[in-house]
Amino acid sequence: MNPIDHIGVAVHSIAESRHTFELVSGGTCTVPETLEAQGVRVAFVDAVELIEPLRPDTTLARFLEREGQGLHHIAYRTHDLDAELARLEAAGMKLIDRTPRTGANGHSIAFLHPSSTGGVLIELVERPTGP
Amino acid sequence: MNPIDHIGVAVHSIAESRHTFELVSGGTCTVPETLEAQGVRVAFVDAVELIEPLRPDTTLARFLEREGQGLHHIAYRTHDLDAELARLEAAGMKLIDRTPRTGANGHSIAFLHPSSTGGVLIELVERPTGP
Repeated sequence: MNPIDHIGVAVHSIAESRHTFELVSGGTCTVPETLEAQGVRVAFVDAVELIEPLRPDTTLARFLEREGQGLHHIAYRTHDLDAELARLEAAGMKLIDRTPRTGANGHSIAFLHPSSTGGVLIELVERPTGP
Repeated sequence: MNPIDHIGVAVHSIAESRHTFELVSGGTCTVPETLEAQGVRVAFVDAVELIEPLRPDTTLARFLEREGQGLHHIAYRTHDLDAELARLEAAGMKLIDRTPRTGANGHSIAFLHPSSTGGVLIELVERPTGP
């Protein structure tokens, strides 16, 4: 079983958006982390990942331009990301990342392609220490 | 603290979409439940709620026409929905439901207005037995 790890929310500004999620959840926003390779800055309010673009020429900035702020992806937590990617690909899923890359908090992550998930962007996350 | 209760995903057909979420999570889709008052049928694959419209003249059918299939809302679980709605309204949040209504599984639910959450549809859920 792979439980939900987090829900990604695309925002123009973590500083402006954190208040809403802190207010509703009662949690506190983490210190934002810059992921240069992905062109984003991220911060967590409990299980919600706020994602803001670093620059206008990033995938996320284009998403925000097209769709506006809002829900961006669901992430499932797995114990063995390589094995899960192989399993899902064998089951016919199209992968964005065929090999894991490094995401927030140094976790290994990979995205499935929305074309094979009915339009939902799904991420898989392996935390180093396991859940 | 209000933890995440579920993530709502708008789909054309639960029967067609359940496979993706069962495959990724390892969970099994519940038997769909019809919520006549909301014009939807819903089913859960773990923490993902698949929501399909009952008819073309429903809010969800219009969402699907406008946005396509995809992430629809985040739901937070609370012990006291009335108190939480009062707290959030006092903090300046606009509510869609000022009094709780009945959602899936007979739970009390209420939605916050996306105009005061930066574009994200947020639901609050009170389960009868508490978490």
